[in-house]
Amino acid sequence: MLRFFLEEQMVNEMKQNMISAQIKRERKAVQVESLKWELGYSAEQNQQPDKFIPAVVPGSVQLDIARDANYPDYNYADNYRLFRWMEDMYYTYRTKFDLPNLKSNEKLWFVSKGIDYQFEIYFNNKLIHAQEGMYVAVELDLTSYLKQSNVLEVKIMPAPKRFAFPEDKKQASHVTKPPVSYGWDWHPRLIPLGIWDDTFIEIRNTSFVNDVYVDYELSDDFSVADIKLKASAVLENEHPYRWELKDAEGYCVLSSEGMMESLLDVALTLKSPKLWWPHDHGVPYLYISSFYLIDNNGEVIQSVKNKIGFRKVQLVMNEGAWDEPAEFPKTRSVPPAQIELNGRKIFAKGTNWVNPEVFPGIITDERYRELLDIVVATNFNIVRTWGGSIINKASFFELCDTLGIMVWQEFPLSCNHYPDDSAYLTLLENEARAIIKRIRKHPSLMLWCGGNELFNSWSGMTDQSLALRMLNALCYELDRDTPFISTSPLFGIAHGNYVFRWKGQEVFEMMNKSHHTAYAETGLPGISPLETLKRIIPANQLFPPQEGTAWEDHHAFNAWDASVETWLCQDILKEYMDPAKSIEELIFQSQLLQSEGYKAIYEAARRQKPYCSMVLNWCFNEPWPTAANNSLLAYPSVPKPALAAVRDACRPLCASAVIYKFVWHENELFTTDLWFLNDSLQVLADQRITVSLQAGNEKLLVSEWKVSEVKPNMNVAGPTISCKLPSWNVQFFKLIVEVQEDATFNAEYTLIYRKGKN
Amino acid sequence: MLRFFLEEQMVNEMKQNMISAQIKRERKAVQVESLKWELGYSAEQNQQPDKFIPAVVPGSVQLDIARDANYPDYNYADNYRLFRWMEDMYYTYRTKFDLPNLKSNEKLWFVSKGIDYQFEIYFNNKLIHAQEGMYVAVELDLTSYLKQSNVLEVKIMPAPKRFAFPEDKKQASHVTKPPVSYGWDWHPRLIPLGIWDDTFIEIRNTSFVNDVYVDYELSDDFSVADIKLKASAVLENEHPYRWELKDAEGYCVLSSEGMMESLLDVALTLKSPKLWWPHDHGVPYLYISSFYLIDNNGEVIQSVKNKIGFRKVQLVMNEGAWDEPAEFPKTRSVPPAQIELNGRKIFAKGTNWVNPEVFPGIITDERYRELLDIVVATNFNIVRTWGGSIINKASFFELCDTLGIMVWQEFPLSCNHYPDDSAYLTLLENEARAIIKRIRKHPSLMLWCGGNELFNSWSGMTDQSLALRMLNALCYELDRDTPFISTSPLFGIAHGNYVFRWKGQEVFEMMNKSHHTAYAETGLPGISPLETLKRIIPANQLFPPQEGTAWEDHHAFNAWDASVETWLCQDILKEYMDPAKSIEELIFQSQLLQSEGYKAIYEAARRQKPYCSMVLNWCFNEPWPTAANNSLLAYPSVPKPALAAVRDACRPLCASAVIYKFVWHENELFTTDLWFLNDSLQVLADQRITVSLQAGNEKLLVSEWKVSEVKPNMNVAGPTISCKLPSWNVQFFKLIVEVQEDATFNAEYTLIYRKGKN
Repeated sequence: MLRFFLEEQMVNEMKQNMISAQIKRERKAVQVESLKWELGYSAEQNQQPDKFIPAVVPGSVQLDIARDANYPDYNYADNYRLFRWMEDMYYTYRTKFDLPNLKSNEKLWFVSKGIDYQFEIYFNNKLIHAQEGMYVAVELDLTSYLKQSNVLEVKIMPAPKRFAFPEDKKQASHVTKPPVSYGWDWHPRLIPLGIWDDTFIEIRNTSFVNDVYVDYELSDDFSVADIKLKASAVLENEHPYRWELKDAEGYCVLSSEGMMESLLDVALTLKSPKLWWPHDHGVPYLYISSFYLIDNNGEVIQSVKNKIGFRKVQLVMNEGAWDEPAEFPKTRSVPPAQIELNGRKIFAKGTNWVNPEVFPGIITDERYRELLDIVVATNFNIVRTWGGSIINKASFFELCDTLGIMVWQEFPLSCNHYPDDSAYLTLLENEARAIIKRIRKHPSLMLWCGGNELFNSWSGMTDQSLALRMLNALCYELDRDTPFISTSPLFGIAHGNYVFRWKGQEVFEMMNKSHHTAYAETGLPGISPLETLKRIIPANQLFPPQEGTAWEDHHAFNAWDASVETWLCQDILKEYMDPAKSIEELIFQSQLLQSEGYKAIYEAARRQKPYCSMVLNWCFNEPWPTAANNSLLAYPSVPKPALAAVRDACRPLCASAVIYKFVWHENELFTTDLWFLNDSLQVLADQRITVSLQAGNEKLLVSEWKVSEVKPNMNVAGPTISCKLPSWNVQFFKLIVEVQEDATFNAEYTLIYRKGKN
Repeated sequence: MLRFFLEEQMVNEMKQNMISAQIKRERKAVQVESLKWELGYSAEQNQQPDKFIPAVVPGSVQLDIARDANYPDYNYADNYRLFRWMEDMYYTYRTKFDLPNLKSNEKLWFVSKGIDYQFEIYFNNKLIHAQEGMYVAVELDLTSYLKQSNVLEVKIMPAPKRFAFPEDKKQASHVTKPPVSYGWDWHPRLIPLGIWDDTFIEIRNTSFVNDVYVDYELSDDFSVADIKLKASAVLENEHPYRWELKDAEGYCVLSSEGMMESLLDVALTLKSPKLWWPHDHGVPYLYISSFYLIDNNGEVIQSVKNKIGFRKVQLVMNEGAWDEPAEFPKTRSVPPAQIELNGRKIFAKGTNWVNPEVFPGIITDERYRELLDIVVATNFNIVRTWGGSIINKASFFELCDTLGIMVWQEFPLSCNHYPDDSAYLTLLENEARAIIKRIRKHPSLMLWCGGNELFNSWSGMTDQSLALRMLNALCYELDRDTPFISTSPLFGIAHGNYVFRWKGQEVFEMMNKSHHTAYAETGLPGISPLETLKRIIPANQLFPPQEGTAWEDHHAFNAWDASVETWLCQDILKEYMDPAKSIEELIFQSQLLQSEGYKAIYEAARRQKPYCSMVLNWCFNEPWPTAANNSLLAYPSVPKPALAAVRDACRPLCASAVIYKFVWHENELFTTDLWFLNDSLQVLADQRITVSLQAGNEKLLVSEWKVSEVKPNMNVAGPTISCKLPSWNVQFFKLIVEVQEDATFNAEYTLIYRKGKN
């Protein structure tokens, strides 16, 4: 079954369409294809598995077992509970292969980009490696152990647990494994184990390059890139190298050649580099770096290709932030949250990205692509890859580079008190070093963050926590020109709220009076589409939703704070509308609140520009189908209506109206404030804006506003408009803001109408 | 003139009185005594000085020139301006000595603990060293350059200036030199240059130890110290070593011996270590570490002695801080500011320490001792060594260790925007490494801080500034168990106010309504005592004080914010009292406000315990005699009346009354709230407290309060007391709170009385 092949030279890729992401691996030398893996398990560490079953690599032990034993879909009802026993087993992955045909200057390597989580590797029954941590890649030279017939085994320990009880995320507070899989308010308890990223054996020359890093610093006016070409290699003999930088059109703009040393560090200068921009500010321009290790006959031993984008990112002070606080005794000004990219202040509109699958082993390039295409289509320019989930695979970052999506990258810490002890610090340092070295190469990387909500009471970590001081130190050492923050939220940055109405306050009021530099998480729930519900909830439980049913397993009840019914929130819906009489009506009500709430959040945050510089909703996607969740997409990628509302609220240019409250009464004075929002570099003149109220077919023109000038990247505050609400026979009415010159700038809001007095 | 002497063995010091500080140097081997130095200067770098004059080392070039040329006292009037030209000269220190008698296993070293600021060292006309930075010690092996007659020269560059204009602290925003000497609101522009710390040549064995560091970690219950004995050495041959740890009584409690390697790292365990405490919480217990490098005949080549104190310090969350903020959208909780020492939360009462002299070269051990004795006598347990000044010399820290004074240690950055550029970062890293390695050994060290007011608008640095990220990384690398903060104030920590009345609010109101975890700087000015004024102000200018005179040179006018007359504040005095008719009356008025204001500040902060955990006034001392300043001492160590007020307000146990305002009127309802403050571990029962108002000889008993229990380290809030103010013929009255059981707990406040209506 072993088949060796020489990888095709990717000559044409240099001229590819920059938008179409063509995923490539950094290192593709001579590779062994399709190792056939088997999996066994046992309850005790030293016990041999009873049997071996076919295994898919990358994947997870749970999915292999479920496939083999015909488990029902874990997404349905409470089937995920059937997987509970698998947390505590010992697993053995096994593969066999015959002696490959190695030349005298070749060696055979075993490479795995990720094994989850604590494991040992045996080759021909000899322990050759042991590791804790899923982010440090494994690279093992097998050559000296090779026999005619070979057996490679990866033995994986049970899921790590700091304490036996309670069974929750705290069990993962001493490891780099994503705590989310120990159970979250939108994630079942399902703890993946297994080989989760690309894994193969490959034949390498005795001399090979193991890292190429094109580090650079842009001059203050961005006209020159001072490049440091850094490469490291294992060299049996002296070898020449050649490095070429080609632009997106395929022209070589810079090159270097010489003799390779084990650590190469060459200074080069690129004049007038084309800059990388997020998709809504320019072209995410990428160059191609090709590094060739050459043998003494002039033939290429190895080529390493990377895409390179040139950009300078800083977190700078938000406008007005230096003026606060004003009074004595006074504390410090807030830390900066404003992204400045290539000298331009970018209003960051985006979303919190969570693991796209419960089992990271099955995330494909296509799965990332599907979701990231929606990110772009929603007018988002940034994703925060939330610290409770996995660190994404290589293709995630390659796609963000290509699509022009900025990335706020967190380390794998979330909502826990990670300890100051040396064992954890050593583990985290090793993993973080691997993470930083892998991701720092990507122009889409805007921000390193120590993890999620670590400075809040439920986590209990502080600025003094050694894990965070160490991560700051490591980022300084390895990638000091990319901003670092210890956690989210920081001082001045807000998170929450997470429901439409909280302690008597609606999302409108909360957002309108809020004064923050950034919103790192904010959102509100919507029930999943009916098709999703039918996939996960037995038909006889579908309506009305009840606690103790599949609704609760899928986070509709008792998921989060007990003061509201999370995430179904029927208690909140009943404040506004008659109790739903069908599942369809319930979904409509919930999705209406989610849509209007999200619209208000994004627009309010945008109106707070320039003091406010960022808004990210909680959250974008989900790793399994929930019954109700703050996500904009139901698993796998099904848009809720709120997605379109958010897409519209994030248009670079659009009209906007302040919503003061959701319910309005007959004869009440309806009031709103008009705005014209502009995050683009476009300039507009003389826009005529009309404001109407529409109830059923009746449309009432309320006012007009003439906007003489819309300046680039600046909002325009317009007039306050009032109008006594007429007598209508409707449950809802619409506020419609129309821009006569360009209907694509129009805005529309649905509100609740009530007969009679307030 | 060369005389070699073998230093006395300090056998008896092990039994010394722990309170009496006996200063010792770490390394005293065979030493060359009293090098005779000369100084010359020139306007151009390559120009030879016209002449050489006698120089005092350590000292400063300015003082040598002033001494030689009979300059008038720089403290008087505006004489400091005469020194202005010296900033821009090139200086040459020169010393000559004959070939010493070196054995085959000996070498001659030049050692300087500090040369200010940028310099080159020439030996026998050969450039052997060049350096920028005053904190990296110079250690140079002269042996290979030795001749029969030798000339050693230290050539010092002009004071560094980032820009030529304006002539202010910003000129020092790219260096580690104290910015204060470029001019501050209480410091003249006088920029020291020269050799500022101990400097000598010494004969060393070819093998010698250059650092001994007794690192340790205390167990959670403080019953065991896991010691890492770390030593580094330059070794010509293999040598045995012996290390002994003796307790304060002279008993050896731990020892180690073996063969010395160039890097020694030995793990040892000390059971039941006696802990180090600040003077008001226990005994600042010190052990003595003696490290001996031994030759093959068993004789000691070198001994290195250190005092070691065992303590564990953490910054932990202030009580109640996790509960804030409460509302959504919410930002993070404040960072911790509560010192926890050996498991005990310590309320930190102290002061901001500035450079005790304009010229650091003349600071002696005795000068430090004089000031630090006053710190202890004022019931202070902490000093913040402010980042605008120098990093103190060794004896400062040795005294703090011995006297039981906690130290908040800042790096040399203050009120400037220090750049992200590599030249500055490299310089700062080198200096900071030297600073950390020197100071981390001291048990009095509680906190590293990046510098002063860097996150405020006038500095413009942020959490992203590379200098501060680098300092965090360095402290993590070299001393990770000591807390680190980036700057002061941090979020939750306050600074200011700095005058009695600010924008209509009195210090009383500001402090009573303030809600902060710590006060890092707060204070108000007092005029210096008359004797001090007479030393600095010409007799004909003494009264009334006027702008443009020596009063202004000494910071009485136009020193700080223009909205008040800083620091004389006659505008504020006139709000309360008739304009003073004599200098004596003016001093009385100013010192009255300073005393009552300081009393209110310290007591208010203490009443805010446990949320508040620290109060430090701005400032303790001053480096030259000011006319008016927030300091408690006039230069050199003359107490203002406010010192006694602060001493009383900081008594571990005392009564306290809330002062709501300074001026009270006839027939007005006088109101106060009573408290009993306790920062000690003492317990009191059944204290009877009486409250009286006294006007002239008339004393009116207002109320009584019986305190049934005062618990350790906890305050007791008492009743609110009101009383209609009678008709008096006085300008002032006193609120007197008397504790019948112990008059040392009494409190007393002076307030202003006015006839007629409010």
